[in-house]
Amino acid sequence: MCLPEITITLPLWVKSFLDAQPQIFPSQDERMRLAIELSSLNLKYASGGPFGAAVFDEDGRLVALGMNLVVSSGCSLLHAETVALAFAQKLLGRYDIGAGGTAQYELYASTEPCAMCFGAIPWSGVSALICGARGEDARAIGFDEGDKPVDWTASLEKRGIRVELDLLRPEAVAVLQNYASSCGELYNSRKSSMQ
Amino acid sequence: MCLPEITITLPLWVKSFLDAQPQIFPSQDERMRLAIELSSLNLKYASGGPFGAAVFDEDGRLVALGMNLVVSSGCSLLHAETVALAFAQKLLGRYDIGAGGTAQYELYASTEPCAMCFGAIPWSGVSALICGARGEDARAIGFDEGDKPVDWTASLEKRGIRVELDLLRPEAVAVLQNYASSCGELYNSRKSSMQ
Repeated sequence: MCLPEITITLPLWVKSFLDAQPQIFPSQDERMRLAIELSSLNLKYASGGPFGAAVFDEDGRLVALGMNLVVSSGCSLLHAETVALAFAQKLLGRYDIGAGGTAQYELYASTEPCAMCFGAIPWSGVSALICGARGEDARAIGFDEGDKPVDWTASLEKRGIRVELDLLRPEAVAVLQNYASSCGELYNSRKSSMQ
Repeated sequence: MCLPEITITLPLWVKSFLDAQPQIFPSQDERMRLAIELSSLNLKYASGGPFGAAVFDEDGRLVALGMNLVVSSGCSLLHAETVALAFAQKLLGRYDIGAGGTAQYELYASTEPCAMCFGAIPWSGVSALICGARGEDARAIGFDEGDKPVDWTASLEKRGIRVELDLLRPEAVAVLQNYASSCGELYNSRKSSMQ
């Protein structure tokens, strides 16, 4: 039996996009706007679902970014958050981005994480999660977000991961609604019949 | 800025192991024994944590396998279940393993999935999850399993994913205890201070 390999690459449009970005994003709004812009460009270039994410260090330096690549990659694990976290780990050279709590990194997500990405966040070592749109905004256009614990933000907070919701939520929601208007693909393999 | 790539490969020992395996695993016990053996070999060859997983089709044909590769790969996403699911998707050529519910595939996990892997299962398209050890068995040797919804099995069942627990649990637990005895690395980046 021949063993396969899996290679994860970012869409081609990312390079020119990144070349035009500053190295430092001083404010939280600027960091969230980057995540939302990634969600919008992913829709524009048809490289995946309308979700973007980015990891910044404590000075606001962009460390890594991600966008939903489920359909284009053929891999259901590749949500915006998991892609951003995996590339941050690759670029930093460690599976624990926070290096045992000695370094502070923040994950910005254009939409609140689904159940999988929620579960992935504590293992990544980030120390904060900042979200734009709510899970209910994604569900409103047909995405299944999975079942997180009811007190999911408290679950992260008790691990020392600060959570902020609703940062620039209207801008993030506008991208989701554009996706719905353009009849974008919904790729939930096992959607609940009860939702 | 240069865009990185991430390549996921299985440990070198997997090829010779696979060459010695049958193509079909007729019984549930045989399928679970494969997942448990992977967890044991991952410990023996020091390629990761003591967790194994495998995807089988409805005839018991082995489609893909996985093992925990967090430390060796430097990527916190690469748990046994996510690795097995990603390789199944790669080999089948689709992000929805179940092809819209027209094909039945089962995920065997030597230990009950953590919060991340629980969340990943509905997006993968598998139609059944069969577990060996319980989450509490992993916690008993120091692993943080994250916070799943209290009724996590019902959450999967309502999506049409059958769940079976405790298949060959003592054999699966024995591997976890061997790992603890050998002082294996615990790689929870953000463990709760409350556990």
